Amino acid sequence: MIDVLIVGSVALDDVRTPFGEVHAALGGSAVYAALAANYLSSVGIVGVVGADFPEKYVRLLTERDIGVEGLEHAAGDTFRWKGYYDYDLGTAHTLETCLNVFADFAPKIPAAYQSAPFLFLANIDPVLQAEVLRQVHKPRLVILDTMNYWITHQREALLEVLARADVVMVNESEARQLTGTPHVLQAARWIRRHGPRGVVIKKGEHGALVFWGDQLFVVPAFPLETIKDPTGAGDTFAGGFIGTLAKLGDLSEQTLRVAASTAATLASFAVEDFSVHRLASLDGGEIRDRYQRLRSLALIDPFPGIALRSSGRPGPER
Amino acid sequence: MIDVLIVGSVALDDVRTPFGEVHAALGGSAVYAALAANYLSSVGIVGVVGADFPEKYVRLLTERDIGVEGLEHAAGDTFRWKGYYDYDLGTAHTLETCLNVFADFAPKIPAAYQSAPFLFLANIDPVLQAEVLRQVHKPRLVILDTMNYWITHQREALLEVLARADVVMVNESEARQLTGTPHVLQAARWIRRHGPRGVVIKKGEHGALVFWGDQLFVVPAFPLETIKDPTGAGDTFAGGFIGTLAKLGDLSEQTLRVAASTAATLASFAVEDFSVHRLASLDGGEIRDRYQRLRSLALIDPFPGIALRSSGRPGPER
Repeated sequence: MIDVLIVGSVALDDVRTPFGEVHAALGGSAVYAALAANYLSSVGIVGVVGADFPEKYVRLLTERDIGVEGLEHAAGDTFRWKGYYDYDLGTAHTLETCLNVFADFAPKIPAAYQSAPFLFLANIDPVLQAEVLRQVHKPRLVILDTMNYWITHQREALLEVLARADVVMVNESEARQLTGTPHVLQAARWIRRHGPRGVVIKKGEHGALVFWGDQLFVVPAFPLETIKDPTGAGDTFAGGFIGTLAKLGDLSEQTLRVAASTAATLASFAVEDFSVHRLASLDGGEIRDRYQRLRSLALIDPFPGIALRSSGRPGPER
Repeated sequence: MIDVLIVGSVALDDVRTPFGEVHAALGGSAVYAALAANYLSSVGIVGVVGADFPEKYVRLLTERDIGVEGLEHAAGDTFRWKGYYDYDLGTAHTLETCLNVFADFAPKIPAAYQSAPFLFLANIDPVLQAEVLRQVHKPRLVILDTMNYWITHQREALLEVLARADVVMVNESEARQLTGTPHVLQAARWIRRHGPRGVVIKKGEHGALVFWGDQLFVVPAFPLETIKDPTGAGDTFAGGFIGTLAKLGDLSEQTLRVAASTAATLASFAVEDFSVHRLASLDGGEIRDRYQRLRSLALIDPFPGIALRSSGRPGPER
């Protein structure tokens, strides 16, 4: 029995940044999210790989008790992403995307996973995300990710699946594109009007905004000495978020805050090295320590008992 | 006797944003900073205006007890800035800058201001900033702002005055340009190696990073429903910061946190309307309330007493 089901891509990535490069390295949204969630909860993934997918990568997942019953092995090559980042590291530049076996991917949820209470629909075709929802039995919480391509090319299908999600997790530009408003609070409100109770706006090195009903909270990104490769940060955040919710088992405001902060903590580890090198090799103590440091960084003391002047006057005439 | 001396521009601004426009509206770094600091401490400004400067704007300052003995009235026109913002509101586009009387500005610090314990050198020619430092008597704290133009054209003079400042307050792109590193932690370290004990990196809608000795803390921007005009946000932040430090009178870590959060609170008001309309007409209660809301937004709870798995294994082979 797993707590968290993650459906998304499993990839071999070629990534170049100013700090190095990797070839055919383990990647994909489901992999990053699963490795993150797995520090907190039991996780199974559903995805597809090709004949070229190294056995050692499957082993990396199974050695960490990540369920791979839903990892389909198809004839052909694994999904490949080739891209690079410049010095600002804020923007991924895609050189090539080869869907390969992912082009014909039709998610089949193993019977043992169909009752998983927490479901992360990582960034895949919203038609497939809906297909997943048809195969599962009333999960307690569904988190949905998407991307600009689906917002443009599968808008109707996306809005249908979005209406059935509890939380939508997108970056700032996706939020603007999806909702047609440049204003992030309005964008979040637009998404909530279309169904989801929660919205997470990911802002990369600037952290994230979490909307939950009428609540709003902000989580900073942990300021890092070393960022080698931002690939997978958003998926790691999503995995850490849903893994924490599954572990704590409630949806109180406090639990959501803890989940978002744990998510930001795990994402900060993920980008410190290429591929999943750092994310896959953490221990609980260092996660806890960095969470505590993030907490200290963000602490705002109560306003002191000092007098504040009032202007006592209207502003300048117009 | 004033607590905070502010030396900078006093301007008439023409600003257009998607939400409206103003002509010859009160602006300038010294004005925004003074109005913000004045909610907390007693403030005097040093700057220059021309014969066209409306008497009502001087009155706006004096009615709020902001000292204007150092506001020189010169023959000619007041400094003018004309610019606009697009929908993202993140970038000011300058249409025209007319230095006018500001071109020959030579700051003369009134005797009554020379012993002010807190000094904000807003963004003016670093040669003039050095001139101010020669006229004051050992202030307890000097905060320095600057901009890309001076970093390029007056680098040597800037580094000299920077070495004598306690805190440098710049935005992200200025920090990168000044230090030659894209990495914000390294940029802050570079600045601290050149003298200042504190560095504040302003990130607009993403808040600010505050470095103080070995301490680092992050302050989010208050998420706003309405942003009409971002002009002056950075100067408002600086004014709120130094005003709070002057009021609390110490430089403990807690005081710096409170100062940065108060600064972010005041900046969030400033951008809600054009010119100083909102900033100039606050009362103490609403400042305190928004501070408290900012504090709630940023709260991170302690990590709960749950078990975290450890990977127990190194990452993938390279």
